[in-house]
Amino acid sequence: MIKVVKIGGNVVDNPELLQRFVRDFAAIPGRKILVHGGGVMASQMQKSMGMTPVMIEGRRVTDEETLRIVTMVYAGWCSKNIVALLQSEGCNAIGLSGADGNVIKASRRPAVEVRISEEECRMVDYGYVGDVTPDSINAGFIDSLLEKGIVPVFNAINHDGNGNLLNTNADTIASSVAIAMARFRAEEDTDLIYCFEKDGVLYDKNDSDSVIPEIGRDRFDELKKEGRIADGMIPKLTNSFKAIDNGVRKVIIKHAGNLLNEIGTTLI
Amino acid sequence: MIKVVKIGGNVVDNPELLQRFVRDFAAIPGRKILVHGGGVMASQMQKSMGMTPVMIEGRRVTDEETLRIVTMVYAGWCSKNIVALLQSEGCNAIGLSGADGNVIKASRRPAVEVRISEEECRMVDYGYVGDVTPDSINAGFIDSLLEKGIVPVFNAINHDGNGNLLNTNADTIASSVAIAMARFRAEEDTDLIYCFEKDGVLYDKNDSDSVIPEIGRDRFDELKKEGRIADGMIPKLTNSFKAIDNGVRKVIIKHAGNLLNEIGTTLI
Repeated sequence: MIKVVKIGGNVVDNPELLQRFVRDFAAIPGRKILVHGGGVMASQMQKSMGMTPVMIEGRRVTDEETLRIVTMVYAGWCSKNIVALLQSEGCNAIGLSGADGNVIKASRRPAVEVRISEEECRMVDYGYVGDVTPDSINAGFIDSLLEKGIVPVFNAINHDGNGNLLNTNADTIASSVAIAMARFRAEEDTDLIYCFEKDGVLYDKNDSDSVIPEIGRDRFDELKKEGRIADGMIPKLTNSFKAIDNGVRKVIIKHAGNLLNEIGTTLI
Repeated sequence: MIKVVKIGGNVVDNPELLQRFVRDFAAIPGRKILVHGGGVMASQMQKSMGMTPVMIEGRRVTDEETLRIVTMVYAGWCSKNIVALLQSEGCNAIGLSGADGNVIKASRRPAVEVRISEEECRMVDYGYVGDVTPDSINAGFIDSLLEKGIVPVFNAINHDGNGNLLNTNADTIASSVAIAMARFRAEEDTDLIYCFEKDGVLYDKNDSDSVIPEIGRDRFDELKKEGRIADGMIPKLTNSFKAIDNGVRKVIIKHAGNLLNEIGTTLI
């Protein structure tokens, strides 16, 4: 069994929740991989330097100065802080960007047409934003670390192989790594767990007790039609089902503070 | 043969020199390890955030906010940028803080008495500044990376094992790693190479052509007495001879732009 767990920037930025998550994650037996965001801190850092974060469709427009900041925040402070906390819990973690050990490559996203409003589409150049090159993931290297009992901790910074760093979506890194490991270790089960600040996918977004325990593909389509699943949750679930289509056994969406209990939404 | 090469913040902050160094370093055959500073960028970053860097005896007083900045700069931007550049030259590098893979531990330096002037001594608490715990260096892990053809790239951030990051001197990391590898691989030669912005140890500090090709311990004592070696060069050479006393074959001090040629000072 390999567990790939992803935590978002809201968790990384909350010392109490992070500490609890780290303790629980360290307690998971067996092979595991962590992927983390850090967007909340990156935005704070940009603001403290007099910059205004620009987000389009949830992705950060990343000019040269923003790339420097996200690399410092994600691969520097967030990564090393999480790794040191895991070490203090007896979990032998190693922080990795895609450049480290050439473990993940990405290619710079070309300018794309984005719908800004009902009436307006616009060409957007996201700058130093990358999309993971799926076949580039060095599952053999990841596996060799797991074999030694070392826990890879991925941040959202990848490289293009030509010396350039790229800002990449952490959800996609998590699903891409899970798919690569499921392929590399086809004889083992690989699960993907997205942790965030809610208990799971809610049937009624105003009722935190309305967690849907299980969603299959048909149910997903129904819930979308009903408008129960919308906005940022749609790409997360679409990504999740893509992982399941590509060998991942199941995807669980749950609260970062509840890693070890049963509460959450399982996608199968 | 294992080569441990250290570059200072002046090299990291100079894109042209860094590019040249990276190309040369990538071309070194066999097992090699890089250690880098980043102090120039850290000071710039502090200033851009309205802080005033405080240095006492060449060491940065590191409060909580400064720790965050040096971690972002050293382990984030400098580390990942150097690693991505090395990857683009076909060198499979991996950026490591001491927390990563629990490879180096440090202990927080207690407040120490420092001579501020002829007349005045003062107790200085450097804050989150660490001294490398020599026996903590995980030479087996470093060796396992080298065996795979992976090149470890160390930054100056270490951890105490209790979840705290510490700002550590990069020169000392380089000599400590070299000593640990010389012990672990006693059958192989380990060389330590300090690269900076001069051609070597100068006999006349105003004459860049006066590089002393070789310095033994007796000559070092003479040169100190004559005042030829002073200031920051004394701890660097003292550190170097300590490495030689502990199994390192030789230490070379040379210009970062001349990595592959013979110019430099060899300590034996």
